[in-house]
Amino acid sequence: MSKGLTKRSENYSQWYNELVVKADLAETSSVRGCMVIKPYGYAIWEKMRDILDKKFKDTGHVNAYFPLFIPKSFFSKEASHVEGFAKECAVVTHYRLKNSPDGKGVVVDEDARLEEELIVRPTSETIIWNTYRNWIQSYRDLPLLINQWANVVRWEMRTRLFLRTAEFLWQEGHTAHATKEEALEETLKMVNVYSDFAQNYMAVPVIIGAKTESERFAGALETFCIEALMQDGKALQAGTSHFLGQNFAKAFDVKFTGQDGSLDYVWATSWGVSTRLIGALIMAHSDDNGLVLPPKLAPIEVVIVPIYKGKDQSETVNAKAREIYQQLKAKGIAVKLDDRDNQTPGWKFAEYEMKGVPVRLALGPRDIENGTIEIARRDTLTKESASQEGVVDKVEKLLAEIQDNIYKKAMDFRSTHMHTVDTYDEFKKVIEQKAGFVWAHWDGTKETEERIKNETKATIRCMPFDAPEEPGRCIVTGNPSQKRVLFAVAY
Amino acid sequence: MSKGLTKRSENYSQWYNELVVKADLAETSSVRGCMVIKPYGYAIWEKMRDILDKKFKDTGHVNAYFPLFIPKSFFSKEASHVEGFAKECAVVTHYRLKNSPDGKGVVVDEDARLEEELIVRPTSETIIWNTYRNWIQSYRDLPLLINQWANVVRWEMRTRLFLRTAEFLWQEGHTAHATKEEALEETLKMVNVYSDFAQNYMAVPVIIGAKTESERFAGALETFCIEALMQDGKALQAGTSHFLGQNFAKAFDVKFTGQDGSLDYVWATSWGVSTRLIGALIMAHSDDNGLVLPPKLAPIEVVIVPIYKGKDQSETVNAKAREIYQQLKAKGIAVKLDDRDNQTPGWKFAEYEMKGVPVRLALGPRDIENGTIEIARRDTLTKESASQEGVVDKVEKLLAEIQDNIYKKAMDFRSTHMHTVDTYDEFKKVIEQKAGFVWAHWDGTKETEERIKNETKATIRCMPFDAPEEPGRCIVTGNPSQKRVLFAVAY
Repeated sequence: MSKGLTKRSENYSQWYNELVVKADLAETSSVRGCMVIKPYGYAIWEKMRDILDKKFKDTGHVNAYFPLFIPKSFFSKEASHVEGFAKECAVVTHYRLKNSPDGKGVVVDEDARLEEELIVRPTSETIIWNTYRNWIQSYRDLPLLINQWANVVRWEMRTRLFLRTAEFLWQEGHTAHATKEEALEETLKMVNVYSDFAQNYMAVPVIIGAKTESERFAGALETFCIEALMQDGKALQAGTSHFLGQNFAKAFDVKFTGQDGSLDYVWATSWGVSTRLIGALIMAHSDDNGLVLPPKLAPIEVVIVPIYKGKDQSETVNAKAREIYQQLKAKGIAVKLDDRDNQTPGWKFAEYEMKGVPVRLALGPRDIENGTIEIARRDTLTKESASQEGVVDKVEKLLAEIQDNIYKKAMDFRSTHMHTVDTYDEFKKVIEQKAGFVWAHWDGTKETEERIKNETKATIRCMPFDAPEEPGRCIVTGNPSQKRVLFAVAY
Repeated sequence: MSKGLTKRSENYSQWYNELVVKADLAETSSVRGCMVIKPYGYAIWEKMRDILDKKFKDTGHVNAYFPLFIPKSFFSKEASHVEGFAKECAVVTHYRLKNSPDGKGVVVDEDARLEEELIVRPTSETIIWNTYRNWIQSYRDLPLLINQWANVVRWEMRTRLFLRTAEFLWQEGHTAHATKEEALEETLKMVNVYSDFAQNYMAVPVIIGAKTESERFAGALETFCIEALMQDGKALQAGTSHFLGQNFAKAFDVKFTGQDGSLDYVWATSWGVSTRLIGALIMAHSDDNGLVLPPKLAPIEVVIVPIYKGKDQSETVNAKAREIYQQLKAKGIAVKLDDRDNQTPGWKFAEYEMKGVPVRLALGPRDIENGTIEIARRDTLTKESASQEGVVDKVEKLLAEIQDNIYKKAMDFRSTHMHTVDTYDEFKKVIEQKAGFVWAHWDGTKETEERIKNETKATIRCMPFDAPEEPGRCIVTGNPSQKRVLFAVAY
């Protein structure tokens, strides 16, 4: 089964595309740019969603649901937002089909044209702030801390499974606050929630920082983000949290009466992560043998494969396998017993290796005799024979160890791909030859940022929060700079 | 707060519309026919979804996600399906907007017209069976037991919150089987899952049966359903499960090689419930004071309202309230402590009554002195003073009792609205004057069914599975009939 997977070193992009399909995560659909998320891929998304949802609720948020469609005119209300989003989008113009006059199929009924076209939401700030106008009158109605799990559509021209698709699944938080300080605090709180999720569940180290003006969300005053490094040395933006100021409140006339009786516009944030996280997860950890999943997000943490010949062996081996299965299950571990008769153990080994199941237990007649069991780790591809006694505790510890090890590996990779440069020549050389993150001084202007992007394809991923004060000179213009910023070529 | 709610006896329909808004469940949006599901309403949907999702998984199903858009031509492939669904739907014709020539807002870019229009899914049989063609080759690939949680759009002309909206949330199961028997068994299994959910969680008694040919899902050979009775004597179809035969397999050319090497079309089922269930929940139990929720689906099962004057009282009362809150929480009960200072206890009482919180605990200074607490039930609107000691156990028992009582009340209502008639005159009188379910003999023809519908608005809700063999004569034509069927005027 693992046969035929292109090596990362040969063609990283092809390796990724093949892996998504071979690991049964997703596939392209008949609808241009839209994907089908297959059960195994969707199970990863369910784990992500459940963990994030709990984190949102623990930080005081509630879920709600807003319409899929947004009247076209709503987009024109926030000037920069329409530039950023309303252009490449799916437009609903009619609400009825009729039988084709030639009797073949159906055609659009021109009598059923909408008075105003509807846009399939690319993001929901406009429809939500139009709704908030009726929900917010007084400071007592604030803060409003709402999240939505939904599908959105952005008409991307070049699509890739999970990383960039016309339709994708995501969550979008939209909060309303009485003060600027509180909204900024919320923006920061949520980017930290994302960072915690990326590092402690996805096992992906990330750098937190603020976007430059030109990389900000359309309509935001500040965009905070988490940036991760993939194995090809490219960066991937894994989550964003936006401080929207009073822009949307002004566009949709959302005011509140303060405790002192004064009337003011409401302060806003929005923040989101999407099924793109699955792309990041795949590209951060997987290898030439297939997927590597951190146990905390693996739909199957442990698979048990019984090995036997004939009915006699089958009964004793399967009985023991079931016993261990029940014990692991009782511990709350996501365990699968693959006792199918129509596939060989070898086929199963290859299958679960491709699918990135963190721990594989194998059990044969000799193991029954000796009271042993084979334990294989997906992350290191090592295996050992262990005693059946205490195997449950051992597996539990091993899962935690694998989670840590995967994170450590990703962190080591990032460390060796973190460069600090002081000249533009050096910058270009590193970007071209080594890839990875590059710390460099920048003069803070759009022009320099644009020039670097055009000449090297590298963009400023963020201005990291924890960058030390370190006066220096811009690598392009030589103008003074107080802190280095983080560059990379990005997905 | 409960002021201003129209009485059910005055205008049931208005009572419903007002209640949905006053209980903070949902509201109409700026997009025609689409609703905003507010946090409290969405929390009910989350409970429903989690319980159903577990039931689906326990019966061997997995979740996946298919595209929102369906190419127009797909609908023409299954003849009756296109008649039933493709007509009233949202049609995407363009994928780009551009700045308006007059500089005011944005307009559709006519250069960005899609070659083939896309339909926003009204249901996903076509796109899913088009996908299954590549997933199914052999009997080894069967059964395929997949469910999807998604939004769908049907361009309804007359909409009502939850009951009938242009966009709604639902789940749709789509399964593929090697044999007719297995597919029929699945169809039956899932309508039973729905029935179990309706009765044991929603506390709504339902009648299970098969739809007549004219009421079947477009493209199905059999539609099984659960039918519930609302307090105005109208029936509501709360869930359906369809046996699709080989219709979609033939339309999308999905064949499999059997164990004996023969090639055959795959057998299909689909089944779904939607946010309409929330409408059923409201209409089955609520009263003139507001919402009544069964504890198992209540976002808040118990609310604690501390009552005090001044800071001294506040401290002792709140301390005790928090103690009880923690104890209830530890038991896994969804409890809320409303210790807000800016609303009076009276306002809070009215609010939670309107929102249908099953149990309200109130605690004042005298209760602290006496070691007592007031326990109020939403279903019976009764209250009693109880000892603080053992209050947690008492509340736990009470919640189970309320769940049972709500079901019993709904069952009693249905019993008194279940009529058996033998003549068409009697039928018309009952439908007009008493409403409810009517058992009557029918000759099995479309013509008679149609005539009854036109003359009385009553439809055959289903041919109940447990209807006894009881030869009789059709109330309209006098032709022989073996069993009675179930009529009602329906939502």
